[in-house]
Amino acid sequence: MTTSTGSAAAAPAHERVLSPGLEGVLAGETALSKVDGANGRLTYRGYRIGDLVEHGTYSSVANLLWTGDWDPEARLATSAVPDAVLTTLRALPRSAKPMDALRTAVSAWGATQTLDWPPTPEQARALTSFSPSALAAFARIREGKDIVEPDPSLNLVEGFLYQLTGETPEPATARALDAYFIVGAEHGFNASTFTARVITSTMSDIASAIAGAIGTMKGPLHGGAPSEVVDQLAKMGSVEHAEEWLRGALDRGERLMGFGHRVYRAYDPRAAALRKVAEGMEHKPDWLQTAIGVEDMALRLLAERHPDRPLKTNVEYYAAPVLMGVGLTPDLFPATFSLARHAGWTAHVLEQAADNRLIRPDVRYVGEAERDLPG
Amino acid sequence: MTTSTGSAAAAPAHERVLSPGLEGVLAGETALSKVDGANGRLTYRGYRIGDLVEHGTYSSVANLLWTGDWDPEARLATSAVPDAVLTTLRALPRSAKPMDALRTAVSAWGATQTLDWPPTPEQARALTSFSPSALAAFARIREGKDIVEPDPSLNLVEGFLYQLTGETPEPATARALDAYFIVGAEHGFNASTFTARVITSTMSDIASAIAGAIGTMKGPLHGGAPSEVVDQLAKMGSVEHAEEWLRGALDRGERLMGFGHRVYRAYDPRAAALRKVAEGMEHKPDWLQTAIGVEDMALRLLAERHPDRPLKTNVEYYAAPVLMGVGLTPDLFPATFSLARHAGWTAHVLEQAADNRLIRPDVRYVGEAERDLPG
Repeated sequence: MTTSTGSAAAAPAHERVLSPGLEGVLAGETALSKVDGANGRLTYRGYRIGDLVEHGTYSSVANLLWTGDWDPEARLATSAVPDAVLTTLRALPRSAKPMDALRTAVSAWGATQTLDWPPTPEQARALTSFSPSALAAFARIREGKDIVEPDPSLNLVEGFLYQLTGETPEPATARALDAYFIVGAEHGFNASTFTARVITSTMSDIASAIAGAIGTMKGPLHGGAPSEVVDQLAKMGSVEHAEEWLRGALDRGERLMGFGHRVYRAYDPRAAALRKVAEGMEHKPDWLQTAIGVEDMALRLLAERHPDRPLKTNVEYYAAPVLMGVGLTPDLFPATFSLARHAGWTAHVLEQAADNRLIRPDVRYVGEAERDLPG
Repeated sequence: MTTSTGSAAAAPAHERVLSPGLEGVLAGETALSKVDGANGRLTYRGYRIGDLVEHGTYSSVANLLWTGDWDPEARLATSAVPDAVLTTLRALPRSAKPMDALRTAVSAWGATQTLDWPPTPEQARALTSFSPSALAAFARIREGKDIVEPDPSLNLVEGFLYQLTGETPEPATARALDAYFIVGAEHGFNASTFTARVITSTMSDIASAIAGAIGTMKGPLHGGAPSEVVDQLAKMGSVEHAEEWLRGALDRGERLMGFGHRVYRAYDPRAAALRKVAEGMEHKPDWLQTAIGVEDMALRLLAERHPDRPLKTNVEYYAAPVLMGVGLTPDLFPATFSLARHAGWTAHVLEQAADNRLIRPDVRYVGEAERDLPG
């Protein structure tokens, strides 16, 4: 393929190179996170993800992403759902997908707020505090239960579990989900984050940006499917039966879920951080116990079968059992991932707005030549 | 600036060229429309925009964009708003921005539908038929009026006006707005269309894509601001006072609204098509009469002041008086533009899905080097 020019506006269209997926095209700059796939490293604002999970909370990590300041004591609680949004959530079919409900809730929330340009950390904080309450409300409404009001004394992730279940969670449970929220908070220019930045680039508002990001994350090509890891663990049943099941699956040419990653060639640092939290839990949920017990065996078998290909554990391998372990049903996994990503999405909105330029690529026309209407 | 490579995945990140706005980057291919700014030409599927306005309706143009087939008799009527969406629209503050209401309505509609992959022309048709009813409903609800059910005997744009006003519009009024819908239906890879394609590229659904597109179009950098043209016409008052006002404005260094365009260096072909329809109206609304009367004078003065710069009439110059002329209030202009663009947005969703590839650019990290947490 021939070379093209970066200052492509100067080049005639026919000389410009088409990049349909924009793969490898640098569409912007960020100071929020660095994803080093080759070495299995992830930092937020320079801090290693493992350190953030060990010493921080999701609230402090969100604050770090928004402001650049590390304050391990930073607090963020869930906030009340405005009546207009509650009415909306009650009106949706109970069979509605949680991602559709969350996207609609964020959009309706935006319609109730004054969200002046430029977006601010206060707007980011307000939206990130709102969404867990809205998802918890929908999860209860669809089961015919009363909604649970926020408890401002609880940190965000604890508060989400409280509003979901009506009970203050065990500290270890809240800690495990908090760790999941931290590792899910931010990951560079994935498709949903890019959508949030494109929307912001027109000087639209933060609710429009995050509603668009949720709609993007809804697509199965966006991230993975942690619920498939759950299915896999369910099929294995227990650590005792795992080796037999794993060998059978590999013999049948099936892909093992939770291993291998588009970016990470080494061990996914998010999986390592989640495993560490899981290992430290005194009473591990069965799901976690099995996942930990099976991982080394799966890695050994994968290395036997694919000595040339680095297939290491990815974040979903531990995300799935953590989410199951804290009592979430698999159909809530994608929306819970979206809640976690709110910190990163909204931080990207702030970063885009701070040095804004309309994001508007060109397109190559490949259709019919100019012609007359028939008849 | 040095050259970069199109197959950029192969090039090390530090050698790749940054394109923050993706300006001039070819992010995809399309057979839907060709925008030839240098020559002032716009075609949909090869057919000239002027011919489409003269011989077609918005329904036939939408059908053309979705299917590639030209059928001037193709019909598309507005459809009923599902109860869940009506409840949502009633719950929103009456002061909510119509773009926020429309985005929320589309999102809530998506939550009530089964929208399997891949998106289909039927899904595109269903959504394009729904949105005018939803916007009309919100416009009436916020004024405390009863909503008006769709009349399936009316074509889409007539049906929208009927549901907005409660009265079947004069044919000339419906025709003028239909022409506006046709010229607004599609325009290549603007930011909102690009958002719809990014969202679709994850294999998400058509409602997610269009909700994201509406949120993108909401930003003032997206398109123009036809309501500013209305303000300008209001300040002139009449053709008689126009020259004095125009000279004064130019003397003060003010920008004339409705002239000049990022892409079109020649006369905007959409403006030409709208002017032609306007000139053919027997009873022109005052707004249109003034716009037509003032245009040549404004072009003459602009050519005097800027002999080196081609500042020709753009689509907004006629869009604004057409929208005012059919009785729309300026705060409904952006959402009405979004209704018109539904045909193009949804056609791009279909085109993206037909040859799908995840749209996911890279980002350059410019933040802190890896470091330890303080304390």
